[in-house]
Amino acid sequence: MRSGTVFTQGLRQAVGGSPFWTVEAVRQVRYHVVSSNGLFEPGNTALLTGCPDAPLHPGDRRLVVIDQNVDALYGADMCAWFTAHGVDATVVPLRADEAVKQWDAVSTVVDAMNDFGIDRRREPVLAVGGGVLTDVVGFAASLYRRGTPYIRIPTTLIGLVDAGVGVKTGVNYERGKNRLGTYAPATATFLDRSFLRSLSLRHISNGLAEILKMALIRSEDLFVLLESRGAAVRADRLQGTTEDLSRAADAIIAESIHLMLEELQPNLWESALERCVDYGHTFSPTLEMHALPELLHGEAVVIDMALTTALATLRGDVTEAQAQRIYDVIRALGLPLWNEVLDDPALLDDALRDTVRHRDGQQRLPLPVGIGRHRFVNDVTPAELRDAARLLRGHAEGHVSSAGALVPEQVGA
Amino acid sequence: MRSGTVFTQGLRQAVGGSPFWTVEAVRQVRYHVVSSNGLFEPGNTALLTGCPDAPLHPGDRRLVVIDQNVDALYGADMCAWFTAHGVDATVVPLRADEAVKQWDAVSTVVDAMNDFGIDRRREPVLAVGGGVLTDVVGFAASLYRRGTPYIRIPTTLIGLVDAGVGVKTGVNYERGKNRLGTYAPATATFLDRSFLRSLSLRHISNGLAEILKMALIRSEDLFVLLESRGAAVRADRLQGTTEDLSRAADAIIAESIHLMLEELQPNLWESALERCVDYGHTFSPTLEMHALPELLHGEAVVIDMALTTALATLRGDVTEAQAQRIYDVIRALGLPLWNEVLDDPALLDDALRDTVRHRDGQQRLPLPVGIGRHRFVNDVTPAELRDAARLLRGHAEGHVSSAGALVPEQVGA
Ligand SMILES: NC(=O)c1ccc[n+]([C@@H]2O[C@H](COP(=O)([O-])OP(=O)(O)OC[C@H]3O[C@@H](n4cnc5c(N)ncnc54)[C@H](O)[C@@H]3O)[C@@H](O)[C@H]2O)c1
Ligand SMILES: NC(=O)c1ccc[n+]([C@@H]2O[C@H](COP(=O)([O-])OP(=O)(O)OC[C@H]3O[C@@H](n4cnc5c(N)ncnc54)[C@H](O)[C@@H]3O)[C@@H](O)[C@H]2O)c1
Ligand SMILES: [Zn+2]
Ligand SMILES: [Zn+2]
Repeated sequence: MRSGTVFTQGLRQAVGGSPFWTVEAVRQVRYHVVSSNGLFEPGNTALLTGCPDAPLHPGDRRLVVIDQNVDALYGADMCAWFTAHGVDATVVPLRADEAVKQWDAVSTVVDAMNDFGIDRRREPVLAVGGGVLTDVVGFAASLYRRGTPYIRIPTTLIGLVDAGVGVKTGVNYERGKNRLGTYAPATATFLDRSFLRSLSLRHISNGLAEILKMALIRSEDLFVLLESRGAAVRADRLQGTTEDLSRAADAIIAESIHLMLEELQPNLWESALERCVDYGHTFSPTLEMHALPELLHGEAVVIDMALTTALATLRGDVTEAQAQRIYDVIRALGLPLWNEVLDDPALLDDALRDTVRHRDGQQRLPLPVGIGRHRFVNDVTPAELRDAARLLRGHAEGHVSSAGALVPEQVGA
Repeated sequence: MRSGTVFTQGLRQAVGGSPFWTVEAVRQVRYHVVSSNGLFEPGNTALLTGCPDAPLHPGDRRLVVIDQNVDALYGADMCAWFTAHGVDATVVPLRADEAVKQWDAVSTVVDAMNDFGIDRRREPVLAVGGGVLTDVVGFAASLYRRGTPYIRIPTTLIGLVDAGVGVKTGVNYERGKNRLGTYAPATATFLDRSFLRSLSLRHISNGLAEILKMALIRSEDLFVLLESRGAAVRADRLQGTTEDLSRAADAIIAESIHLMLEELQPNLWESALERCVDYGHTFSPTLEMHALPELLHGEAVVIDMALTTALATLRGDVTEAQAQRIYDVIRALGLPLWNEVLDDPALLDDALRDTVRHRDGQQRLPLPVGIGRHRFVNDVTPAELRDAARLLRGHAEGHVSSAGALVPEQVGA
């Protein structure tokens, strides 16, 4: 009944022999990241009017899924805030740590959405917690009726500067970290660093590792800020106890997020394979998998960065003096330089091969150039990796950590 | 460290008081629907070169997930074809019917992808089967590493004209049909109506119901074709036994798909709530839920269409003569006009309320205008529904079904 070629708003049909259609369309995505400290303080109205796309009115219902540890600390304040503002909140505490970041947790959230009888046009789900909680709730919401809006309130430093501001959701599947997931940004993320006051220093350091990553590849300014104020801001848990610490904490968070979003925005769906935000993430998955007792993600990332800094030093892209500054900052932030896994060259080779497999046949490895810049390379050899590991070992052994007892046990220093 | 407003390719930051970012981006989607009968006949090369975005070469590996019933019928031919063309296929037969359309089936497919060690850049998963199979495999693929390409080969008529050509994937969750899912088109769908030769007439009719839907709302031409050739094409299971039946089968399939894609393309992610392709899908979910022994989806859809045709007759939008032609075609296609559930006015009211809830507070009900056109209304009343049901009952009782024994048992006719 059709003949010739029909063009209809991106629908193309060729009828010569057998029918053939091509459908093309673009999907527009928009999301917001809003800063406001003390979200649940009585007078704070950021959650009501802070985001144009996610208004909250007295009388509205909301489903709130919250990390059970966060609920124990902040649940009462949160409920009081909802009550004070006339919001009918149904609060569902959820255990949310890496061990339970599995489909079962998603299923629990879906059950909660079913029970709540969510109106997916008007009632975004609120996710309050660390990266595990927001990844799980974001995943569930993105699947529920093929997409229900959600809002993130990160309560860890990783959440504030990384998990909470991108578009990725997901859970682990068997041994595969984040093996299942979607690209589905929260309509809004509300950043409130006051939650960090109860976070362990180890988890503060964990977040600082991702901030340091952004500094090393993108911003000498941010690096200098970490160099001068990082240790103090860490000890202060980014609470801004003094005016100066407050400014430093705000600047470190805002600059890190801004750089991250600059990198993410043109590549939200990760179609481009050369991603400088992957810096530190080449060898770290192998480290995370093999280093027991478990390394935190940021700790593994920082060891990867220490190794690749050594590699860049061997190539002459980073000077010895620059490398020394980097290692000093890593220590000052309470992060490890070394892990025994680096002694096993086979594991490093495996990690490199895995990377090549996932980056369509090439290494596409971001390597630091000086401090604050990077380039991509495709020619790292196993021998070079071994030399870099040897060099790093020297650095790690030659010094007493400035962070002393704060460096986790499993780090051979 | 930032001041003023920065615009970076869709990244907007306002730094006045607290930092605030807006991230905007567009995602480009493209997919193909390719017709070729006899895909697994020795000389057919459509799967190798038929789609520019999904080439298959000798030496390539592929994971093939296939409905176990289809495997029993066509598995040997398929494997012979892969072998003949040097494709290293790993075939995973899967039970795929509505009862097992649940997360567990998705998990089985994910396991198969893990075991296969899929290269998500180069090795799209093949899904061969009916709508259940392609929905499940599409869902699994869309989640695996946040999106692995897949290719559909539908083997039912619903698959050819509906499930196989859109962008929706999903599974049921508890009582919620397709409660969990994603929008993720297959890179390519290959249409081969020769698979229908083994399909039961009831499932052929089931697919014809969705084709009739497209005719009623969009195309009097297609309706006339169904009126004149529908019964014969059905009896022939769209195999094109004669030249004339072949032309009719091709035209019915191609026209129906074309109309469907014209409706889908501008609204791939269903952001617009007035969708004429929802015709027949307002009361059918309630029918499917309550009519036991189970109605097939298309049977429920066609009863919904019969009811709303009666409603449009009462409104004067469809003449009695047109309604009679419609009812005659429904019968000729071996489909039911009536189900006892329509005797329960409370259920119809519930269905209407549910629709309003899912369409953001309005009915947005597509109703037929004559044959081949439609309009949206928001003012259907419970009383009107009861009158329409009464009118339809008269039609259903007043006639002996022309399809006789082919009309399923549960239809009170
Ligand atoms: N989606 C992304 O783009 C993205 C980016 C980075 C990391 N991630 C994911 O994030 C996860 C790591 O996130 P995380 O580091 O926040 O870990 P987490 O969510 O496991 O939180 C760490 C621990 O701190 C507790 N906690 C949370 N907030 C607290 C608070 N304010 N005070 C005291 N305790 C608190 C939690 O209960 C948990 O025990 C990983 O699963 C990782 O895959 C995702
Ligand atoms: N994704 C979408 O846009 C979309 C659209 C419409 C329907 N659907 C979904 O599709 C499903 C219905 O699809 P369906 O009608 O194809 O049902 P189905 O997949 O259950 O197949 C029906 C039966 O036919 C068998 N079968 C399949 N091909 C055969 C063949 N060639 N010969 C003999 N038997 C064969 C199957 O094993 C099954 O028993 C529903 O779950 C529905 O939600 C999805
Ligand atoms: Zn990371
Ligand atoms: Zn349908």
